[in-house]
Amino acid sequence: MLDQKIWRKLSRGPQVILPKDAAMISALTGLQSGDTVVDAGAGSGWLAIYLGSIVAPSGKVVSYEWREDFAALAEKNAKKAGLEGVVEIRKADVFAGIAERGVDLVTLDFAESDKAVAHAFAALKPGGWCVGYHPNVEQVKAFVEAGEAAGFAHDQTVECMVRELLVRKQGCRPQTTGIMHTGYLTFLKKPAAEALKPKE
Amino acid sequence: MLDQKIWRKLSRGPQVILPKDAAMISALTGLQSGDTVVDAGAGSGWLAIYLGSIVAPSGKVVSYEWREDFAALAEKNAKKAGLEGVVEIRKADVFAGIAERGVDLVTLDFAESDKAVAHAFAALKPGGWCVGYHPNVEQVKAFVEAGEAAGFAHDQTVECMVRELLVRKQGCRPQTTGIMHTGYLTFLKKPAAEALKPKE
Amino acid sequence: MLDQKIWRKLSRGPQVILPKDAAMISALTGLQSGDTVVDAGAGSGWLAIYLGSIVAPSGKVVSYEWREDFAALAEKNAKKAGLEGVVEIRKADVFAGIAERGVDLVTLDFAESDKAVAHAFAALKPGGWCVGYHPNVEQVKAFVEAGEAAGFAHDQTVECMVRELLVRKQGCRPQTTGIMHTGYLTFLKKPAAEALKPKE
Amino acid sequence: MLDQKIWRKLSRGPQVILPKDAAMISALTGLQSGDTVVDAGAGSGWLAIYLGSIVAPSGKVVSYEWREDFAALAEKNAKKAGLEGVVEIRKADVFAGIAERGVDLVTLDFAESDKAVAHAFAALKPGGWCVGYHPNVEQVKAFVEAGEAAGFAHDQTVECMVRELLVRKQGCRPQTTGIMHTGYLTFLKKPAAEALKPKE
Repeated sequence: MLDQKIWRKLSRGPQVILPKDAAMISALTGLQSGDTVVDAGAGSGWLAIYLGSIVAPSGKVVSYEWREDFAALAEKNAKKAGLEGVVEIRKADVFAGIAERGVDLVTLDFAESDKAVAHAFAALKPGGWCVGYHPNVEQVKAFVEAGEAAGFAHDQTVECMVRELLVRKQGCRPQTTGIMHTGYLTFLKKPAAEALKPKE
Repeated sequence: MLDQKIWRKLSRGPQVILPKDAAMISALTGLQSGDTVVDAGAGSGWLAIYLGSIVAPSGKVVSYEWREDFAALAEKNAKKAGLEGVVEIRKADVFAGIAERGVDLVTLDFAESDKAVAHAFAALKPGGWCVGYHPNVEQVKAFVEAGEAAGFAHDQTVECMVRELLVRKQGCRPQTTGIMHTGYLTFLKKPAAEALKPKE
Repeated sequence: MLDQKIWRKLSRGPQVILPKDAAMISALTGLQSGDTVVDAGAGSGWLAIYLGSIVAPSGKVVSYEWREDFAALAEKNAKKAGLEGVVEIRKADVFAGIAERGVDLVTLDFAESDKAVAHAFAALKPGGWCVGYHPNVEQVKAFVEAGEAAGFAHDQTVECMVRELLVRKQGCRPQTTGIMHTGYLTFLKKPAAEALKPKE
Repeated sequence: MLDQKIWRKLSRGPQVILPKDAAMISALTGLQSGDTVVDAGAGSGWLAIYLGSIVAPSGKVVSYEWREDFAALAEKNAKKAGLEGVVEIRKADVFAGIAERGVDLVTLDFAESDKAVAHAFAALKPGGWCVGYHPNVEQVKAFVEAGEAAGFAHDQTVECMVRELLVRKQGCRPQTTGIMHTGYLTFLKKPAAEALKPKE
C-alpha cells in the first residue's frame, strides 16, 4: 500500500491533483498493472507516483518536467515511494514533443495543455487515452477542440465531488465546509487501429 | 488497459459498485501492485476484477461469494479480463470467517456487512484497510460502530458524486439529469503493530 | 427589497438558516402575501423576518422564542427591517403549545422539534405545511415519524447546495471551497379538509 | 398559499425555471411585498406568478412576451393564480426597450439576454437587481461582460442543486437519480445613487 499519510500530506495544495481526481483518471481509463504512461508536467511527482503504483512492476511512467527544481523533487518523491524503477522523471519540455510510442495513457496537467495534444496523439497506441486536467471551463473547451483536431474522439469530461459524511453517536451529517471544485477531467480516446486506417 | 466498453456495460445497474466508487476504494487506501485483497461478496465479480487489475501480477484478490450462480458468473468474468491467476472466486460464506491472514485490504459490499467486520479485522495486517459500501446512512452507522468495537479506527466515510460537463460548440454546461447517489464508502483502518501490542 | 448587506451579515453563522434554505421553505410551500405563519424558535429573528417580508402587509408571522435575550434581539431586528406590524416575537415555550389556529405554515428550527409537531398539526389549516430544519439524518427520521404519527403526510425532505461560479476574464470555474452542508428541510403536509373528515 | 400541485405540474419541463431557481432569485435579492418587477420573457408565466405572489398586493410584475400564444397562456395562468391585478403580461419585444422606471428587480430568462441588460439598467432604481438565468457557461460570461459594460456590478453567479433525502423505515439515503443541472443564476446590481452621480 502507498502510505496514505505521506500521500495526504504531499497531495494538499492547489498545485497537486487530489486523490479523488487521480482515482478517476486510472479507473475511468481502466489503467492496470503492466501499462505504459506518459505524464506531464511532473510537479511534485505525485500523479506519476500514483499511476506508477498501479502499473508496477512491469509497467512504466515517464513524467516530463522542464523545471529543474520540480524534477529533482519529483525524483526524490518517487524514490521515497519505492518506485524508482517504474517512475522516470525526465527533464524535458513536453511542448517539444514526446519521444515514447505505443503508450496506453497520456496525462496532461498544465496550462495550455491543448498545445501538446498532437504530441500525445502520436505517442499513444490505437485505443489509448489522453486525459487533461483543467480548473476552467474555457481550458476544457480549448483542449477538446485541439484534441478533436488532432484525431481524438472526446469520450467525456467530468468533475468529481467528494463529501465526507460525519458519523457520530449524536447524529450523522455531511461535513459543513470543504472543497467544492478542483478541476475538470477530460478523456480523449485515440480511435482503434481499424478506425485509423483510412487516414494512413 | 481494462476494456472500458465491457466495464461500462457490466458495471451498470444498482447491484454493482460503479467505477467512481471502486476508484475511491483503491485511491484512498493506496492500493498498489503486489497487494493482497479479500472481497465479499463477489456479485458479478467486477470490483474484484478492478482491484485485481491493480494488484497484478504478484498480488491477489480472493472474492467470497456464497451464491453458486454469482460465483460462476464472477469466475467467467475474471477469465474474460485475463485475471484468472490474480482473482480467485471462492464459493464460501464470509459470515463464517475469512481464512486469509496479513491482507492489505478487505472490501465488504453486502447488507449487514457490519456482522463481518470482526472477520475482516482478523484477516488484515496491522495498518490494513477495511472498506464498506452502503446505500443507507443507518448501515454506515452500524458498520462504524461494529468496526470500532472490533478494534478498527474509523478514518472517514465519503460519498463521491461525478457529474459530466457537456462540451459543445453552442455552449458548455453540466449534464441535466443523472446519478445523484450510489452509496457511502466507509474506511476503517486496523491500527499499526505498535498500537496493537497492548491488546496482545 | 430587504437590505442584503444586513441580511448577509446577520445570516452568517451556524445558528441561522441561510438564505438558500429560507428560500426553499417559502418557494416549495408556495408562501405568498397574506399568509399566516408560526415560526419557532426565533433565534435572531431572521427566518421570521424573511417570511414576514413575503406575507406582508396583511399576513402575519408569530415567532416563538423562550429565551429572553433572543426574543429581545429578534424584536429589534424585526423593527430594523420595518416589519414590526407583520412579525410578532412571542416570548413563549412552543413545547407548551401553539395558540394560533388556521395558519398556512409552521416552521420548526430547533433540536427535538419532533416533540412539537402535534402542536403544529393543531395550529395548521387543512392543506397547510409544517417544515422542519435539521442538520442530522437521525433528527429528520424522528421528525418524519412524529409527523406521520400526528396525522401529517410526508411530502419530501431535501437538501439545497449552492455553489458559486467564478466568472473571470482568465476563465470560469466553480468556487474552490465553501459550504457543503447546512441542514435538511423536511416538508410535512396536513391533509385537505375532506381527507381529515373521517377522523373527526 | 400558491397551489403546489399546479405549480409542480406547470413548472416541469426544460423551458421553465424550477421552484429551486425561482427561490434563489427572490431570496438572494431580498424581494418583498410591495416591490416592482420586470420579467422577460414570460413563457408560461410561472416565474412572473411566483414573483407576483411575493410582491402582492401593492407591488407589480410586468412580464414581457413577444409571442402571442405564450402571452395568452401566461395571462390565463396569472388569472388562475388570482394575481391578475399584480401580474401584467405585456405583448412586447424586450429588445426594443423597457418602458418602466425605478423598478426593484429585472429578471431575464431567454437566449441572448445579454443584449437586453442596458434596457434593464435604465429600468432599475439605484441599488436594484438584474438577474439572468442561463444553462451555458458562455452565456453567463457574455451576460456578465455586457452587464459590467452597462454599469452594473457583478455580485455573484450561482448554481443551486437540490437533492431529495429518502426517509424510510428500512433506511435513509439520497435519491438515486434526478436533476443535476438546470441553469446558472447571475446577479447584477445597479450601484446606489451616490455611486452613480459622477456619471450624471
